[in-house]
Amino acid sequence: MRLSQLLGERMKQTPSECTTVNHTFMVRGGYIKQMSSGIYSLFMPGKRVCRKIENIIREEMDKIDGQEVQFPVVMPSSIWEESKRYYTVGSEMARFNDRGGSKLVLGMTHEEAAVHLARDVASSYNDYPFMIYQIQTKFRDEPRSRGGLVRVREFTMKDAYSFHTSQECLDSYYERCLESYNKIYARVGLPEVISVKSDTGMMGGSGAHEFIFLADIGEDSIAICQECDYRANVEASDCIIVQDAGKETELVKVETPDCKTIDDLCRFLSVKDKDTCKAVVYCKNEDDSYVIVFLRGDREVNETKLNNYLGCEVHTAAEITEDSGITAGFIGPVGLNAKAEVIYDKSLEGARKLVCGANEPDMHYTGMSAERDIPAGTKFADVSKSVDGDICPVCGKPSIAVKRGIEVGNIFKLGKKYTDSMDMTYQDSDGTLKTPIMGCYGIGVGRLAACILEKHHDDYGPVWPVSVAPWHVHICALSITKDEKVKVIADGIYAALNDAGVEVVYDDRKMSNGAMFADADLLGCPVRIVVSPRNCGGGVVEISARDKSFKEEVSYSESDYSNIVKSVRDKLAAMS
Amino acid sequence: MRLSQLLGERMKQTPSECTTVNHTFMVRGGYIKQMSSGIYSLFMPGKRVCRKIENIIREEMDKIDGQEVQFPVVMPSSIWEESKRYYTVGSEMARFNDRGGSKLVLGMTHEEAAVHLARDVASSYNDYPFMIYQIQTKFRDEPRSRGGLVRVREFTMKDAYSFHTSQECLDSYYERCLESYNKIYARVGLPEVISVKSDTGMMGGSGAHEFIFLADIGEDSIAICQECDYRANVEASDCIIVQDAGKETELVKVETPDCKTIDDLCRFLSVKDKDTCKAVVYCKNEDDSYVIVFLRGDREVNETKLNNYLGCEVHTAAEITEDSGITAGFIGPVGLNAKAEVIYDKSLEGARKLVCGANEPDMHYTGMSAERDIPAGTKFADVSKSVDGDICPVCGKPSIAVKRGIEVGNIFKLGKKYTDSMDMTYQDSDGTLKTPIMGCYGIGVGRLAACILEKHHDDYGPVWPVSVAPWHVHICALSITKDEKVKVIADGIYAALNDAGVEVVYDDRKMSNGAMFADADLLGCPVRIVVSPRNCGGGVVEISARDKSFKEEVSYSESDYSNIVKSVRDKLAAMS
Repeated sequence: MRLSQLLGERMKQTPSECTTVNHTFMVRGGYIKQMSSGIYSLFMPGKRVCRKIENIIREEMDKIDGQEVQFPVVMPSSIWEESKRYYTVGSEMARFNDRGGSKLVLGMTHEEAAVHLARDVASSYNDYPFMIYQIQTKFRDEPRSRGGLVRVREFTMKDAYSFHTSQECLDSYYERCLESYNKIYARVGLPEVISVKSDTGMMGGSGAHEFIFLADIGEDSIAICQECDYRANVEASDCIIVQDAGKETELVKVETPDCKTIDDLCRFLSVKDKDTCKAVVYCKNEDDSYVIVFLRGDREVNETKLNNYLGCEVHTAAEITEDSGITAGFIGPVGLNAKAEVIYDKSLEGARKLVCGANEPDMHYTGMSAERDIPAGTKFADVSKSVDGDICPVCGKPSIAVKRGIEVGNIFKLGKKYTDSMDMTYQDSDGTLKTPIMGCYGIGVGRLAACILEKHHDDYGPVWPVSVAPWHVHICALSITKDEKVKVIADGIYAALNDAGVEVVYDDRKMSNGAMFADADLLGCPVRIVVSPRNCGGGVVEISARDKSFKEEVSYSESDYSNIVKSVRDKLAAMS
Repeated sequence: MRLSQLLGERMKQTPSECTTVNHTFMVRGGYIKQMSSGIYSLFMPGKRVCRKIENIIREEMDKIDGQEVQFPVVMPSSIWEESKRYYTVGSEMARFNDRGGSKLVLGMTHEEAAVHLARDVASSYNDYPFMIYQIQTKFRDEPRSRGGLVRVREFTMKDAYSFHTSQECLDSYYERCLESYNKIYARVGLPEVISVKSDTGMMGGSGAHEFIFLADIGEDSIAICQECDYRANVEASDCIIVQDAGKETELVKVETPDCKTIDDLCRFLSVKDKDTCKAVVYCKNEDDSYVIVFLRGDREVNETKLNNYLGCEVHTAAEITEDSGITAGFIGPVGLNAKAEVIYDKSLEGARKLVCGANEPDMHYTGMSAERDIPAGTKFADVSKSVDGDICPVCGKPSIAVKRGIEVGNIFKLGKKYTDSMDMTYQDSDGTLKTPIMGCYGIGVGRLAACILEKHHDDYGPVWPVSVAPWHVHICALSITKDEKVKVIADGIYAALNDAGVEVVYDDRKMSNGAMFADADLLGCPVRIVVSPRNCGGGVVEISARDKSFKEEVSYSESDYSNIVKSVRDKLAAMS
C-alpha cells in the first residue's frame, strides 16, 4: 500500500475528546472515525488490525473443533420471546417492526439463534458434543458508550456456543476453551490477560470466567490475592473481612444532631467509619418494596451480589415514604420497626462497639454489638464489595488487592437455561428425551484491539505486535521528490517486498522527514526501512524496529534487494 | 472436519417449500436454515462457501487498489437526511429509535457512510483517486423475499465506493472494476455472467452496468441481440419496433359491446393484438394525477422507463373517477378529453389501421393512423418493454431476444449525487474548492453462492467448483464400524491430508454405503476418496471426481499415504 493512496489522516495534536491512549492513537493514526455515539467506521489500518485479530481467534476456535457458522444480525422477536429475554432484557436491545408489522430485534448476543440453528438437527445423543461460533456484528444500545473502541454500541464479536449431554462434558470443554482463550491473548500480544471467576448472576449457570486486561482505565474491579493465585471479579469474590472487635460495651443512646451521613457521624463522634454500622435503602424493581442493607461503615454494597442474594433486581430508593417506619439517616438494627426486608452484611458478623442509628431523628447508639443487638438466628449475607486488605478466601491471608481492568472476553456455563425454555431435546441412548447443556464463549474484537494499544505504545504512537500490525514493514523514502535515486531504490524495495509476500506500506509522499517519521510512528509497523539520499548514496538502507530493539544498515547491490528482503524476514521472524 | 461432529442434517426428500435448485440443495445439504422470511443462518458448509467467495472478491478488490474498510450496520439517520435518502427511500429501510430517542437506520447500502468517512480527510486533489470497500451485513426490508439466498432481507454484500476528481478518471476506474468483476465471476465458476447496460434511474448517474447470470428463475429481463454483442436490461434497452403499417384507411366507429380488454376486442373484431392501440392508466405518486399511456396492443409498459421519462414515480390507477373524462376500457387518442397527462409510446409511431377506443362506452374506432389521428407534434416516448424480435439498436437487425436472469452485481457511475448533497469538497491544484465524483460497485455474496449452485449441480446435489467448495476432499469410510482396517486407513488418510493442508471432510459415521454417498453428493466436494473393506484389502483406495470426470484406484504402502496426498493434489490442481 502506498501512503499517497491511503485514505485517512494522521494528526499531530490529540483531539480534545480523546482521554485514553487507545482512543487517542486510534484517532490520531487514522484507524477509526466516529459516526455517532458508540458507532464507528474503520479506516483500512483499523480494519486490518481487526481482521488479524479475527483470524487468530478463528484459528484457535477451529483448533478446539469449533464450526464457524453465521447467525443473522436481525432476528424475529419470536425466538427471544421463547427464551423470555424479549421481556427481561431492557432498552439495550434495539427493536423495530418490519413493513408487515412483525417485531424484529438486533442481536446483542446469539444464544437463541444458536439453539434455533441446532435444535432440529442435533436430535440424537450421537450428534453431541459440538461447538458453533461466528464472528459477526452486534448492536447493544449501551448507555455508557465512551470514546474509542472499549465500550461501543456496535461491535464485532466472536461468540461461540457449545452443546453437551453431560455436565462433565461441558466442564471439560470449558477448560479447553479457557486454554484456547489464553492462547488467543498471548498471540495478540496480551499474555498478561488473567482469567477471573465472575458472577453467573441470575442467568443461573454453574460457572463463569471473565478475562481481564488490568488497566487503570478499566471499568471492572477485580479482587486479586497477592499471595496465592485467587482472583475474582468483585461482583463474584467472597468477602472475608478482618474483624477487630474488642470487648463488648454498653449500648448508649447519644444525640447526633443533623448527622445523616457516616462522614457527619464520624466527625461528630470522632470515630472511624469502620466503627460504625450503616444502612442503605433499596427498592425492589418488581414491587417497589423496601430493602434495608446494614453493613460496616467502611464497606460498600455490591449491588450485583445483592440482586443475586435476593433473586431479584433492586434500585436505590429515591425517596422514603412516611408510613414505612424508616427514619432516613438514622436507621439502625436496634428497635427497628420498618416495612422492609432487612439484610445484614457479613462485615457486621462478630463486630462490637459500633455506632448505629437509633431509628429516631438526630439520635444514634454507641456500643452496638452484633451478637447482642442483631436478632438471634440472623444469617449474615455477603453483599459488600471486596476492598484492599480483605482476607483471601483461598489462602486465608489478608492479601486481597482490588485492581481495575477491562473485560476482554468471557466464558459461561449456561446450563439448560436456553435449551429448556426453547424446547431443545435429544434422544439419549436409552431412548429417553433429554435437554442438552450449553456453554457460551465471547470475545469482542475491537475492544481487544484497544487493549493491545493500551499496552503496546510509546509517546509517539502504537508499537503493534507483529501478529496484529496493520502492515509488517513501513518504508520511508526521504526527499523522494528531490532525489531520483531515492525513488528508484524505494520503489524497488517496495516491489521486492510485495513480490516476496511481505505486508508493506510505502510512504512515497512529498513530505518533511519529521512528518514522515511521525506518520510511521502512528502506523506502528514493527519494521521500518529508511531510504535517504545519504544512505542510498552509500549503497545501504537503514532498517530499524518500531520498538527500538535494533537499528542497522543493510546493503544492497544494484537492482537486487534480496538482501533486504532476507533481513526483513529474519527480523520479523525474530520478533514474532 | 469429521462428519460425525458436523452440525446439520442432510435430507433425502425435497421440502415442499423449495421450488428452485439452489434453495433445494442449500436446505437438503445442510447449508442454510431459515429463521424468518428472508432471514437465514448458515451452517458451517454454507459459511465456508460464502467465505471463499468473499476471499476471492477481497483479492480482486485489493488488486484494483481497493482499501478494505468497515462501515457500521446501524447508522444515525442524520447522514441519510443529508443525502435526502432518509425521505426518498421507503419502507425497505429499517428505522428505529435508540434509548435516547435518536433516530437510527440499518444500512441497506453505504454511499452516505463512504462520504462520511472520506469527506474530512480527502481534502486535497492529491488524495484522489481512491476506492474503499467493505464486506458487511446489510438489511433491506424486501417485500418479495423468496426461499433461498437469491432474494433475502439480510445479506452479506461487498460494496465499494470510488472517488475521483474527473469524469475521465472515474470512467477509466469503472472499466478496471468491470474487468475485475468479470475475473471474480470466472474465479467462482460463473464465467458466463454477462455485463449489461442498466437503468441509472432517477439516481441521475452517467452510466451503470448490471452483471447478469442468465437463468429461468431470474426476476430480471435482459434484451440480448443474437447477432451482435448488444445487451441491456429491458428497463434500459432502447426499443426499436418493427412496424408493418400497410396503407392508411378510414376511421370508422364500431360498436364493441362489453369489450373492455384487448383480448375481448381482438376476439370480437377478429384482429391481432398488434393491430390495436391500447391505453394504460397510471396515477402519479406525488399528487395522484392521471397519466394515460397509449401503446400498441402487443406491447407492455415498462414502468421504470415510464418513471424515468416522467421524472417521478407512478402506480397503476386503482379506480378512475367520473370527473376525469376517462372512459375506462374504451380510451383512445381520437376525441380524448381527459384530465390526464397523455404519453404515446414509440410502438405507435408510424402505425396504421389500428383499432382504438372511442372514449364512449362500448365503442371503438377501426382504421386509426398515428400520423393522422395522434396530435401533430407529438413526441413518441420509449416506455415499453423489449420483446423477442425487436430491432437491435446497435446492429439494426430484428434479432433481440429477451431472457431472464439474476443480477449478481452492479456498478454505477454515481457522479456527484452524494458528494454534492453531503457537502464533500476538495481543494484543487488551483486552490478552488471542487466536488468529487463517485462510483459504486456491489456484489451480493449469498446470491452469488445460489447462482453457482444453479449452474454447478446434478440430480443428487451441488458439484462445487474447487474455488468455492466447502471442502476439497470428502473421505467415505464404508463399513467403518465393522472393519477395523477401514478405520485405520481412513483415519490415516484423513490425518495425512490434514497435515498436508488439504481441506478435507471425513465421513466416519456408522451408515449404509448408500446414505454415505448421498451425503457426499449433497456436500459436493470436488474429490472423493472411498475406503472400503474390499479395496483397502487390496492396498488401494478409490479416488473419484464429484463431476464424474475421473475415477481410479490409487495404491498406498503401509502407513504411508503420501501417494494418495500427491494424487489428490494433482487432481485438484487439474480441476482448478
